[in-house]
Amino acid sequence: MAPRPGSGVTLDAFTDRYAQRTHGMTASEIRALFAVASRPEVVSLAGGMPNLSALPLDAVGKLMGELVQTRGAQALQYGSGQGDPHLRELICEVMALEGIAGSSEDVVVTVGSQQALDLVTRVFIDPGDVVLAEAPSYVGALGTFASFQAEVVHVEMDSAGLVPEALRAAMARVAAAGKRAKFLYTVPNFHNPAGVSLVESRRDEVLALCQEAGLLVLEDNPYGLLGFDAPPTRAIRARSTGAHGHNDDVLYLGSFSKTFAPGLRVGWVLAPHAVREKLVLAAEAAVLCPPTFNQMAVADYLSTQDWQGQVSAFRAMYRERRDAMLEALGSLMPPGTTWTHPAGGFYVWVTLPDGLDAKVLLPRAITARVAFVPGSAFFADGSGRSHLRLSYCYPEPERIREGVRRLATVLEEEVELRATFGSTGPLRAGRPQSEFPSPDLA
Amino acid sequence: MAPRPGSGVTLDAFTDRYAQRTHGMTASEIRALFAVASRPEVVSLAGGMPNLSALPLDAVGKLMGELVQTRGAQALQYGSGQGDPHLRELICEVMALEGIAGSSEDVVVTVGSQQALDLVTRVFIDPGDVVLAEAPSYVGALGTFASFQAEVVHVEMDSAGLVPEALRAAMARVAAAGKRAKFLYTVPNFHNPAGVSLVESRRDEVLALCQEAGLLVLEDNPYGLLGFDAPPTRAIRARSTGAHGHNDDVLYLGSFSKTFAPGLRVGWVLAPHAVREKLVLAAEAAVLCPPTFNQMAVADYLSTQDWQGQVSAFRAMYRERRDAMLEALGSLMPPGTTWTHPAGGFYVWVTLPDGLDAKVLLPRAITARVAFVPGSAFFADGSGRSHLRLSYCYPEPERIREGVRRLATVLEEEVELRATFGSTGPLRAGRPQSEFPSPDLA
Repeated sequence: MAPRPGSGVTLDAFTDRYAQRTHGMTASEIRALFAVASRPEVVSLAGGMPNLSALPLDAVGKLMGELVQTRGAQALQYGSGQGDPHLRELICEVMALEGIAGSSEDVVVTVGSQQALDLVTRVFIDPGDVVLAEAPSYVGALGTFASFQAEVVHVEMDSAGLVPEALRAAMARVAAAGKRAKFLYTVPNFHNPAGVSLVESRRDEVLALCQEAGLLVLEDNPYGLLGFDAPPTRAIRARSTGAHGHNDDVLYLGSFSKTFAPGLRVGWVLAPHAVREKLVLAAEAAVLCPPTFNQMAVADYLSTQDWQGQVSAFRAMYRERRDAMLEALGSLMPPGTTWTHPAGGFYVWVTLPDGLDAKVLLPRAITARVAFVPGSAFFADGSGRSHLRLSYCYPEPERIREGVRRLATVLEEEVELRATFGSTGPLRAGRPQSEFPSPDLA
Repeated sequence: MAPRPGSGVTLDAFTDRYAQRTHGMTASEIRALFAVASRPEVVSLAGGMPNLSALPLDAVGKLMGELVQTRGAQALQYGSGQGDPHLRELICEVMALEGIAGSSEDVVVTVGSQQALDLVTRVFIDPGDVVLAEAPSYVGALGTFASFQAEVVHVEMDSAGLVPEALRAAMARVAAAGKRAKFLYTVPNFHNPAGVSLVESRRDEVLALCQEAGLLVLEDNPYGLLGFDAPPTRAIRARSTGAHGHNDDVLYLGSFSKTFAPGLRVGWVLAPHAVREKLVLAAEAAVLCPPTFNQMAVADYLSTQDWQGQVSAFRAMYRERRDAMLEALGSLMPPGTTWTHPAGGFYVWVTLPDGLDAKVLLPRAITARVAFVPGSAFFADGSGRSHLRLSYCYPEPERIREGVRRLATVLEEEVELRATFGSTGPLRAGRPQSEFPSPDLA
């Protein structure tokens, strides 16, 4: 879809009129492949779509129909730029499950939490400002950071999440380079794509490091209620008493996309009071107001349905799929392959045997009727080629096993080829570029 | 809500961490006043909310409920960043009513047409780039332009719309100053706030001027189907054969907010093919995808309901209100007051008797239980104080007459005071600032 790099011919007559930031917006090379991957015969372990089959569609349809019939003049009308006050109250109740005591006055409802990412970035980032982010990081956040010309500095993770010593070192490097870091972006629970969580004992340490350095923490938590083995971990936001005494160090992002329905695009940000005001102004410039109907529908769903029971059902479903994937990986992957063991969420992060390149493997995998997202999509600098992300959220367990089986065959062939010929093909130097897979991969 | 200018104390601990663009985002001074103006005893001639009382809420509720019950797994799921293909086809049929032959491949569905404005601005505007825009201009567009640090250069209008000679002169001034104009922003039909339309004979001329100068035209047309006296005028987009032979000079923005329901936030942009690709990438960075449910609901509404008959009903309702307002203005306004005569849309633009200042008048008007939007909200440079915008879209005709009566009394008192004392108060030098009234004023 994008002009082929290096083709020497530009087909875009507008190139010299775009803003600087637009030159960083390039379609991912893997997009075209995924058009193929959406065929039914391909097992997609690539997408991040929640599985909605367990939702009570009759009841949800009924409440949405009645919402229009009884309060349509309000639900179909413009609303406040900050979002529906009643929904903001309910959002505070949801956040309380993770120990957060926030005021609904400081909540801004957004068009999915992606828009919260976008608004925070818009409000804080000048071109060249640094965002510290886990290595790897959520691809949609990297896209937003790139679209505002942030420089992303990745910080190492291990099986216990972000490594505090690595964070300290990264901060020092940024400072030594004379650059300005504005915030740390982190997905502390059931990380996308890494499948790990930031352990309890590191949370205070990470927060303290950021406070010391005058950095905000952007805590992105779409999966927090989807833990399989334990109650939700206390949010970083719940630990912050704030340098200014009132929780001023953390912006917390939440979403109903994984606990209810992504197609309504309802997320939120809880921000320090002064920042909240700027976010509302930015939101009004971006969309005037979030969809009123969608907000009232979510509020009705939370108020009238057993939404926490529904989340339990989601958890049980995803746990079964996670088990299927880990089991299949354990019995089928060739030696030298390793992977994370998520205790919640949607994703497993796989490290390939030495010398294998996930980007080179992808077309071969799709030919073998299985799809994944290459690891490089999750790094701002094009690294990560020895990794790939598998998601277990959408397919049935049997399809997951079949997908892993197909992937294992591809890996085995590559390992064998490599043993015979020494290399599986040119490891093209990855041109650093931001990649925007389509939304169903996010 | 914002720290008071000149108070010398900042209450915002984040001031030194915001992006440059954020310093241009300030809450309108008139916001606080409008909190008062929303009281039921105040006749608001300020808001731009469409009147939804004529919508068949039972039928709309039924189709939305059934949408979830029959196709919920799709409607509640993530969708494409460009928007639902079926809706994009239907959007092309809507645009055909104004003579546009566009491909659904070149349509991007947005979260209201406000987001289309935002995406176009994001893709084209570097700080300091010039946007040419009518004087006055839609306040929401000015907010978006300011949020990307564009410099707005206003171009004079008269009762026949944008004045081509003024456009030519403005282009020359911009070029002479060594600045770069990226596009002309225009609302050609039933202008918000001016209440005038760009006459047929000027449309080709305006387009040709922009083509000559290498400027895009950003044609924003939310009110095009709401003409009271004549069928829709052929869109500027319909006239463009394009410097490159394929309609490459106009980005056309449309919306279902005035023909159906603003609370669903469904708008669109029809763009040249190459630009469309950039807009999709920007949209994905901003919100991943527009709400799937909302798009399918609009598509169902267009396909199963007599939506054009409904638009006829809206037209009849708004025409009656327009008549009530023009009649009341004619019989009640003090000498020296003039106003436009809209042939469609929502707004009348009033010019005050010499020396009166709409911003100074507003608190007095609200005390007299009538609200309007001061003209200065519609200028990027703080000018326009001798004007105000009245909207007739929402209140009943009898309330409109009562509102105009109250406003007339306020004006008369001011004219009288001025005759007696020479001035109504200090004409404070308007500090140029972008103003973001809340969405219900947009």
